[in-house]
Amino acid sequence: MDSDFGIPRELSPLQQLRSQYHPELPPCLQGTTVRVELGDGTTVAKAGDAHIIARAFPHTLGQPLAHFLRATAKVPDAQIITEHLPKRVGIVFSGRQAPGGHNVIWGLYEALKVHNAKNTLFGFLGGSEGLFAQKTLEITDDVLQTYKNQGGYDLLGRTKDQIRTTVQVNAALKACTDLELDGLVIIGGVTSNTDAAHLAEFFAEAKCPTKVVGVPVTINGDLKNQFVEANVGFDTICKVNSQLISNVCIDALSAEKYYYFVRLMGRKHSHVALECTLQSHPNMVILGEEVTASKLTIFDIAKQICDAVQARAEQDKNHGVILIPEGLVESIPELYALLKEIHGLLKEGVLADNISSQLSPWSSALFEFLPPFIRRQLLLQPESDDSAQLSQIETEKLLAYLVETEMNKRLKEGSYKGKKFNAICHFFGYQARGSLPSKFDCDYAYVLGHICSHILAAGLNGYMATITNLKNPVNKWKCGAAPITAMMTVKCWSQNAGPASIGRPVIHPATVDLKGKAYELLRQNAQKFLMEDMYRNPGPLQYDGPGADAKAVSLCVEDQDYMGRIKKLQEYLDKVRTLVKPGCSQDVLKAALSVMASVTDVLSTISSSATSGQQFA
Amino acid sequence: MDSDFGIPRELSPLQQLRSQYHPELPPCLQGTTVRVELGDGTTVAKAGDAHIIARAFPHTLGQPLAHFLRATAKVPDAQIITEHLPKRVGIVFSGRQAPGGHNVIWGLYEALKVHNAKNTLFGFLGGSEGLFAQKTLEITDDVLQTYKNQGGYDLLGRTKDQIRTTVQVNAALKACTDLELDGLVIIGGVTSNTDAAHLAEFFAEAKCPTKVVGVPVTINGDLKNQFVEANVGFDTICKVNSQLISNVCIDALSAEKYYYFVRLMGRKHSHVALECTLQSHPNMVILGEEVTASKLTIFDIAKQICDAVQARAEQDKNHGVILIPEGLVESIPELYALLKEIHGLLKEGVLADNISSQLSPWSSALFEFLPPFIRRQLLLQPESDDSAQLSQIETEKLLAYLVETEMNKRLKEGSYKGKKFNAICHFFGYQARGSLPSKFDCDYAYVLGHICSHILAAGLNGYMATITNLKNPVNKWKCGAAPITAMMTVKCWSQNAGPASIGRPVIHPATVDLKGKAYELLRQNAQKFLMEDMYRNPGPLQYDGPGADAKAVSLCVEDQDYMGRIKKLQEYLDKVRTLVKPGCSQDVLKAALSVMASVTDVLSTISSSATSGQQFA
Repeated sequence: MDSDFGIPRELSPLQQLRSQYHPELPPCLQGTTVRVELGDGTTVAKAGDAHIIARAFPHTLGQPLAHFLRATAKVPDAQIITEHLPKRVGIVFSGRQAPGGHNVIWGLYEALKVHNAKNTLFGFLGGSEGLFAQKTLEITDDVLQTYKNQGGYDLLGRTKDQIRTTVQVNAALKACTDLELDGLVIIGGVTSNTDAAHLAEFFAEAKCPTKVVGVPVTINGDLKNQFVEANVGFDTICKVNSQLISNVCIDALSAEKYYYFVRLMGRKHSHVALECTLQSHPNMVILGEEVTASKLTIFDIAKQICDAVQARAEQDKNHGVILIPEGLVESIPELYALLKEIHGLLKEGVLADNISSQLSPWSSALFEFLPPFIRRQLLLQPESDDSAQLSQIETEKLLAYLVETEMNKRLKEGSYKGKKFNAICHFFGYQARGSLPSKFDCDYAYVLGHICSHILAAGLNGYMATITNLKNPVNKWKCGAAPITAMMTVKCWSQNAGPASIGRPVIHPATVDLKGKAYELLRQNAQKFLMEDMYRNPGPLQYDGPGADAKAVSLCVEDQDYMGRIKKLQEYLDKVRTLVKPGCSQDVLKAALSVMASVTDVLSTISSSATSGQQFA
Repeated sequence: MDSDFGIPRELSPLQQLRSQYHPELPPCLQGTTVRVELGDGTTVAKAGDAHIIARAFPHTLGQPLAHFLRATAKVPDAQIITEHLPKRVGIVFSGRQAPGGHNVIWGLYEALKVHNAKNTLFGFLGGSEGLFAQKTLEITDDVLQTYKNQGGYDLLGRTKDQIRTTVQVNAALKACTDLELDGLVIIGGVTSNTDAAHLAEFFAEAKCPTKVVGVPVTINGDLKNQFVEANVGFDTICKVNSQLISNVCIDALSAEKYYYFVRLMGRKHSHVALECTLQSHPNMVILGEEVTASKLTIFDIAKQICDAVQARAEQDKNHGVILIPEGLVESIPELYALLKEIHGLLKEGVLADNISSQLSPWSSALFEFLPPFIRRQLLLQPESDDSAQLSQIETEKLLAYLVETEMNKRLKEGSYKGKKFNAICHFFGYQARGSLPSKFDCDYAYVLGHICSHILAAGLNGYMATITNLKNPVNKWKCGAAPITAMMTVKCWSQNAGPASIGRPVIHPATVDLKGKAYELLRQNAQKFLMEDMYRNPGPLQYDGPGADAKAVSLCVEDQDYMGRIKKLQEYLDKVRTLVKPGCSQDVLKAALSVMASVTDVLSTISSSATSGQQFA
């Protein structure tokens, strides 16, 4: 482990300017007094999972939503958090780095210090491994100085994104006990937040006083549900990728002889690819969710691309840009089946060289058909969550290869009359992940950090910090916390999940909602994007002037504020209660009973058949 | 060819803002009247080439340098350009796109219109092919509207970077004659400007009145000599690449388990790699020029990297970032020899599959040793200039492969005790080439465009537009023009040039000067960069605030302004002439004679042995 964590860095002029930027706080978090209002207890997203989740979380299931309000807010039940005994809090980066992560630490540190100068914040060095080994760095003004609004996770570093095995959770328990922590904040994506919920339950069971809080930070944008509108890092990643994609679009248009196949980092689902498409308008995007829904084979996809190339050539366009999410390979049925067979054999200890001969006839035929480079990549060991090493499998090269083969065939046969097909392949991910965070990510992460402090002050355990209404300016943001268990579901069977997640309540990564408004926007424009080269160039990330305050398109088009709407419903219920108090007229009571009977009927019916749509792969 | 050239585009908010930016003009070009001062006739860079170049350029060799001065400048010989008959000018993108190219067109258009509203500018559509086919678009305010300060070459498009064969130069002559052009402006790099000079000579010989002007626009930064300090596009490319490189540096530092091998577009020489290193401070860079000078084999280079990885691991650093110029493969002696053999066999019509068996024993052994992916890439047809397809040869993967193999061996033997070596490879180029241009490139290109107009007004043929003193603010820039022939040299033997350029006077791409100040700066810091992770993050290209006015480090450290110093020398000579007029004392004359004899002696000696250093590979 590097001993250089947390040392001051020399900053470039732009970094210096950014380090002086101080995000605004929403009104509810301003000042030293915050009220917390606890709403109704939460339920689980899918009724059928309730008993399994209840068994796994006897102590932390069904806790209420929490809303943070200003001290002067006129809400009768909201309690002012007054107890501010000195607290000791730990924070850890768990999982892959995302721009903005540093600001969660900064926000938490500032909130802790505002409420009691004796509060202390410890950063665990080297991610979860640092937690287990109790390697800490006390966060101070000096330590934070050159990391405010800066990218990367290099203030503390990170290792594996796993706090799961018995050895690991016991080590975490020991660390929190030895260090006498009142709170542990875990920064990460779906896996890390799932681990946070299990750890919270484990601590509650063990009567450990440390409260565990999760923060949704992941470039994949797949930690999305009723409570969580966006993830820290997603905005930056999509802006940096869109800059690069639009650069290759302009390049394609200038040279007029290349097709660019661009694979985008973002794990199983296609949120990054969808958002980048909406920002930069490339000619095509192949979303994994569409492929799954239409059960397309790799040859179907290649044929779709070939037909597009041919149609464009007929309009004298011999160039184009095609986006491919890195998770696509797992959305293609026959490739996924092949991967599963390979992973099964690897787990049995079969050597990579011998696997080909032990595959089923169908998988073997497919495997032998594939070009050697992709065969080698498919034989790689799977990741800790049983998924393939998506960043290492060059699906874009496989598609380019298949398309080139087919276009050469069509050219020879005379059915295609355009220029010789020329592909250039790219993988965009690592070069975006370490970027300076966008203003949105700086603000979002900083405010989430503040919320963590209030969650701990309210003594809540197993919660995730949440902000809703994100598409509006910061002064309209609504701050709260949701029990992580309310975001969990259980898979008893699954195409895309490994055995580790079957039967275990986890936060499943959200798929792109094919009924959602962002996807609808894509569909409305897909044909124009394909044929008319409507390339849009948002340009490099700016911190001033036009574009500096832009937010993700997919965030802005969706109707969100689920938490706000839940509150609105409560207001209606309260109003009905007030209108129909004992002493009201018979007619009013009769009308109320009739309408409410009908409402409950309708909702019961919908609820029993609902499968929440968003969360299941 | 696409029929969509020159259509207005929809601009993003940032693009709109940029389209409203209007570059400043240096004082000498402001107003409607400009003086041109013609200096002494130019010589060639290398005395030995003089007779060959003279034979090739009987009409255009030895022309004087031109300086553009303000109308009020007190220079006795400078003549005011007054003749402003309506002119017809053509402009063409020749060669690979570079950010800023559009602004040359804009600057030229504005200058032409200021001097005579009846001047017309025609853009050739689709590069040199459009020139041969006489496909034009008249440039107007409307046409330029959405292309000012924007990246790409999509206003006009581009095809091959070649105007060289008899058929091609005759087609160009016919186009210029048919369209009655007074001037033809060629935007491009070393190859295109070489072609411009030959075309100028050909036109002069054919008594065609069209004057040919070249503009130094290339991302490679290799059109550098006494007259040309920088190339349009280089600044942007280096900034965008440095943004991405520093992002992977931050990524490496956060995850602490990867070595990033980043190959950079930039053709044969290592200007882009050197500049990006000075901007972003990665751990290592392998400059082609160093490899050539030290005669390192691919195994030597791999071993250097292995030793660096090992030294870093001993300090608990298991991550790093290594830059590799795309031209490196041609700087490595044995790989270059292998490539030449392969290209020779390909030219004889030997099929790629049969080449391996026909190689010399030494090359064959090397070829068989290399991993299959790189063998396939080495077998690709060479480019039109006889160099290998550098963008397609993944030298970074080859090095990563060799280093990984060696590190695994050392790990097994116990001599290396760090983490398992993990490499991630990148090629940065296409995603930078289409970028919005930096402010510097916008300004530089726009002013060069203006200069082209003045060159044509002065009736000069075979000149390149030049600006010196670039590291100073625009109001200190010195504008001029230099005969392209003065930048030419002749190679009678050559390691790096194909037969096409042997014996033919051409502008050879400048190598990185290993005695220059930019390289010295790298050497001074190399050890610190290697071991101390001094990663610098300039951040994304900005248009406002810190960094927006930054210029290339390699531009700022060099003593430049060659043209200014040439003028200074002339002033000294004039002063001596004044001091030693007939009538001066015997003593003064004696002293002058003695000193001048010594000066001329020293200079003769130096000149005869000089090989100007910069220009020869």
